[in-house]
Amino acid sequence: MGKDNVHEELPSFETHPSKYKHWKLKIEGDIATLSMDVLEEGGLRSADYVLKQNSYDLGVDIELNDAILRLRFEHPEVRCLVVTSLKDRIFCAGANIFMLGSSSHPFKVNFCKYTNETRIGLEDASASSGLKSLCALNGTAAGGGYELALACDEILLIDDGNSAVSLPEVPLLGVLPGTGGLTRVVDKRKVRKDQADFFCTTAEGIKGKRAVEWRLVDQVVPRSKFAQVVAERAKALAAQSDRPKDGKGLELASVAPKVSASGAEYKYVSLKLQPSNRLAELTIRGPEAAPPADASGIDNESWSLRAYRELDDALLRLRINHLDIGTVLIKTKGDPKKVLAWDKFLAEQKGHWLGRETLHLVKRVLKRADVTAKTMYAIVEPGSCFAGSLAELALASDRSYMLDDASQPCAIELGPLNAGLLPMPNGLSRLETRMLGTPGRVKEILAHPGPFDAGAALAAGLVTFTPDELDWDDEIRVAIEERASLSPDALTGMEANLRFAGPETLETKIFGRLTAWQNWIFQRPNAVGEKGALTLYGQAGVRPVFDMRRT
Amino acid sequence: MGKDNVHEELPSFETHPSKYKHWKLKIEGDIATLSMDVLEEGGLRSADYVLKQNSYDLGVDIELNDAILRLRFEHPEVRCLVVTSLKDRIFCAGANIFMLGSSSHPFKVNFCKYTNETRIGLEDASASSGLKSLCALNGTAAGGGYELALACDEILLIDDGNSAVSLPEVPLLGVLPGTGGLTRVVDKRKVRKDQADFFCTTAEGIKGKRAVEWRLVDQVVPRSKFAQVVAERAKALAAQSDRPKDGKGLELASVAPKVSASGAEYKYVSLKLQPSNRLAELTIRGPEAAPPADASGIDNESWSLRAYRELDDALLRLRINHLDIGTVLIKTKGDPKKVLAWDKFLAEQKGHWLGRETLHLVKRVLKRADVTAKTMYAIVEPGSCFAGSLAELALASDRSYMLDDASQPCAIELGPLNAGLLPMPNGLSRLETRMLGTPGRVKEILAHPGPFDAGAALAAGLVTFTPDELDWDDEIRVAIEERASLSPDALTGMEANLRFAGPETLETKIFGRLTAWQNWIFQRPNAVGEKGALTLYGQAGVRPVFDMRRT
Repeated sequence: MGKDNVHEELPSFETHPSKYKHWKLKIEGDIATLSMDVLEEGGLRSADYVLKQNSYDLGVDIELNDAILRLRFEHPEVRCLVVTSLKDRIFCAGANIFMLGSSSHPFKVNFCKYTNETRIGLEDASASSGLKSLCALNGTAAGGGYELALACDEILLIDDGNSAVSLPEVPLLGVLPGTGGLTRVVDKRKVRKDQADFFCTTAEGIKGKRAVEWRLVDQVVPRSKFAQVVAERAKALAAQSDRPKDGKGLELASVAPKVSASGAEYKYVSLKLQPSNRLAELTIRGPEAAPPADASGIDNESWSLRAYRELDDALLRLRINHLDIGTVLIKTKGDPKKVLAWDKFLAEQKGHWLGRETLHLVKRVLKRADVTAKTMYAIVEPGSCFAGSLAELALASDRSYMLDDASQPCAIELGPLNAGLLPMPNGLSRLETRMLGTPGRVKEILAHPGPFDAGAALAAGLVTFTPDELDWDDEIRVAIEERASLSPDALTGMEANLRFAGPETLETKIFGRLTAWQNWIFQRPNAVGEKGALTLYGQAGVRPVFDMRRT
Repeated sequence: MGKDNVHEELPSFETHPSKYKHWKLKIEGDIATLSMDVLEEGGLRSADYVLKQNSYDLGVDIELNDAILRLRFEHPEVRCLVVTSLKDRIFCAGANIFMLGSSSHPFKVNFCKYTNETRIGLEDASASSGLKSLCALNGTAAGGGYELALACDEILLIDDGNSAVSLPEVPLLGVLPGTGGLTRVVDKRKVRKDQADFFCTTAEGIKGKRAVEWRLVDQVVPRSKFAQVVAERAKALAAQSDRPKDGKGLELASVAPKVSASGAEYKYVSLKLQPSNRLAELTIRGPEAAPPADASGIDNESWSLRAYRELDDALLRLRINHLDIGTVLIKTKGDPKKVLAWDKFLAEQKGHWLGRETLHLVKRVLKRADVTAKTMYAIVEPGSCFAGSLAELALASDRSYMLDDASQPCAIELGPLNAGLLPMPNGLSRLETRMLGTPGRVKEILAHPGPFDAGAALAAGLVTFTPDELDWDDEIRVAIEERASLSPDALTGMEANLRFAGPETLETKIFGRLTAWQNWIFQRPNAVGEKGALTLYGQAGVRPVFDMRRT
């Protein structure tokens, strides 16, 4: 991935516990234990770096993401996840420095975005699905290792006179902790900023009593009692869960894309690349069948589950494997009524654990779209089905074009999932965010009976432009060409600022503020220049040379 | 300033209407008109660029800041400020591109920070002091020109078939609008993100009816009626003001620092540079005299007004003129009881317009400290007076060190200005932000009678460390040396993330999220590389070459 877009080296985003190289997943009753045991030679670019000391790369995080997803769907009986390590005295040393040092800037940034989403997913599992999490730090947790702990509901640190938590990025590498560490320290754990300042500039970190007093961990426990206290706390967390005792898990099948040089084909999703103009067409097909009678009937072929899992995979491929693609045309195809039927089903079945899981999966995939650094244009044309949850994709897009032609009508239609059940990272619905200037219209628009034709959609503010059939091709072509001529960096920054009006949350702080600072620092000469701290890391006796001007 | 730290070229941050090169200030009754008429050859580095088409540099903005300050203090009768231009068909073309292109990255970033503070100051004048503002766009407002308009309460645009508002930074320069434009478009004016997306990628901008429909301006007015409607709207805004009809303005005297190579000396403030270890010592002396009987007695020698104006000037010098300084030791000297007496006076006199202005000045200066990209260590030692508003400086600091020695006691003391009258950019008091993890303690700490000694201050969480006399010198020396060894970029990013826990506001979004993205883009090759868009701007027939990978 250092050499970007070399097709052969690109990762797949699907895996299975039977294939894990880096984690052991064990389930006992209502407690799951996920133990990190990174295979040193198992990196995605194993020729370039060795994953020592439970350090990780994208491949390790893809397994972590898979494990969390499977716990949600396959193991409804699990009420608490214990995250720990099988290495002696080491929990996790964070993202592998040599991997970072040998990666391109765009890859580094997209890697960090993915690891951020995985950690936010862990928090979502607790908040939305009652899958509580306990981080059992059996040894030192540095950088990304501590950031993984920060994403858990509770942190126990072994008290062995040696094991510490630390964010050594600033003092050792001249970069920021890349996975939400700074935000979670002061905003989630509410560590005082002066203590956080000392902590984040102290490479060796903080251990023992002070780690508790400073709110960095919840408890320190002597080695002799560690296993026992972990078990007790896991049990206590499990007791807070509302997961079912008798749910029957759904074993997730692979979404099995057919990947080729021209894109990826799934059952409900087509990703078609047009590299010549740095464009992709992403088409989501609506359901063929009606939903089952209740959520216990959801299976791997169920539209909501499968289509959004496919979309998730396609978005990740776009981000990580196709850095050169700048614009994505979002298209849909199918029967809007059937989409709305599935949406209604999910809204009604959200009290059932599997309905709830499916609904939150749809939510998370749409959030993945919100923070994807590609321009998205929604193309609403005859035969499309921008209804309900798929209408969210149009609202998530940077712009939308809807054909206004009475002889070939098309429509947008809202439904039960547009009213708040699929919030953006800012906590509002996409419709609420869109209507911040005219909040009274949200209710009005939601009350609109039936589909919006082009005129009604434009009047309601649901679409950006409604060219007629004479202008349609040209207007879209020009919009694509103009976009392709602009600086990809400027577009990334612009979109990140325009997409999230309104309130801020931990998530928007991480994807907005923290990510931007990190991007900045990640390519400053002080970090990545010839004598930068990240470049020189690990070279004995060589010290970085900094441009000392404060910016 | 391209050649940083060349002492001779550094600007002064004080000016006076009689010296303005770029603005005309006219006051008629309760309406002031501030007209931009930039002197093309009047740039701070006039050899490097010409300020065509009402484009601006730091010198232009220093005058704008001065004008707003003087309207607040010298002209309490002014209830509405009209911002317009004296150039035909041009309001303002934004920050001068050739100035930006020839400036160092640290200067660019600090320049944008200052212009952001000036615009936030304009909004604060409206929100806190009843000085309403109307932007009368008599011609095209591009980039920073439109961003200035966005900071006003209301925007009128002339409808002449030509004049438009625009943010052409992305399409023309490959950078972001640098002065809050993206945030204010979607968060203040609540422009829909898809319309904002089109607007921000359309170099020629938007004019006429569409500018109103898209909420970019409040009204478009034909040339023939422009003057009349401006006058009407100014009158209507003035009617919303609660400024006094009979206030007697206070003519602001220069704070007249004695500037030398070793720093700057003021009546109440000393700035001492120690360039060898990239350190500065910033000492604020407490008041000698007691406050006057009421706010009408405030004059240029009044402690609260003078000391904080001096501090403001010193902070700006540190930021812009001393880029190499990384750490600032914050010290105070004087009688804490007298500081608290002045604070009590301001709290009691905030119903008087001049008391109110002085209080908000103190607030704004402390906010300037909050967003200053230098490490601040507060040093609480015998003879110091970290009481009340000066205690805010300790709370604003990244860390604080307080001597714990019974034989030479020192103290921190809180008072009426620590309970919310001096909010941070996040809208909370510094104490509330500090105590986010233990919100119950805020009330408790504010109720503490009298001063906190070192032990009590540590227990209350008001200071970071309390070394005894044996450790004092070494501990501070080590803290200074360690800090000086770290990457200045990483520290800037770290501090920007740790200082603002809690809620987000327009201000924190601008200084946190937007600024960070802008910094990132401002030094990407796509903008400032040899073939970057900013570098090549204005060179006929040459097109930028972009790295097309999306980050």
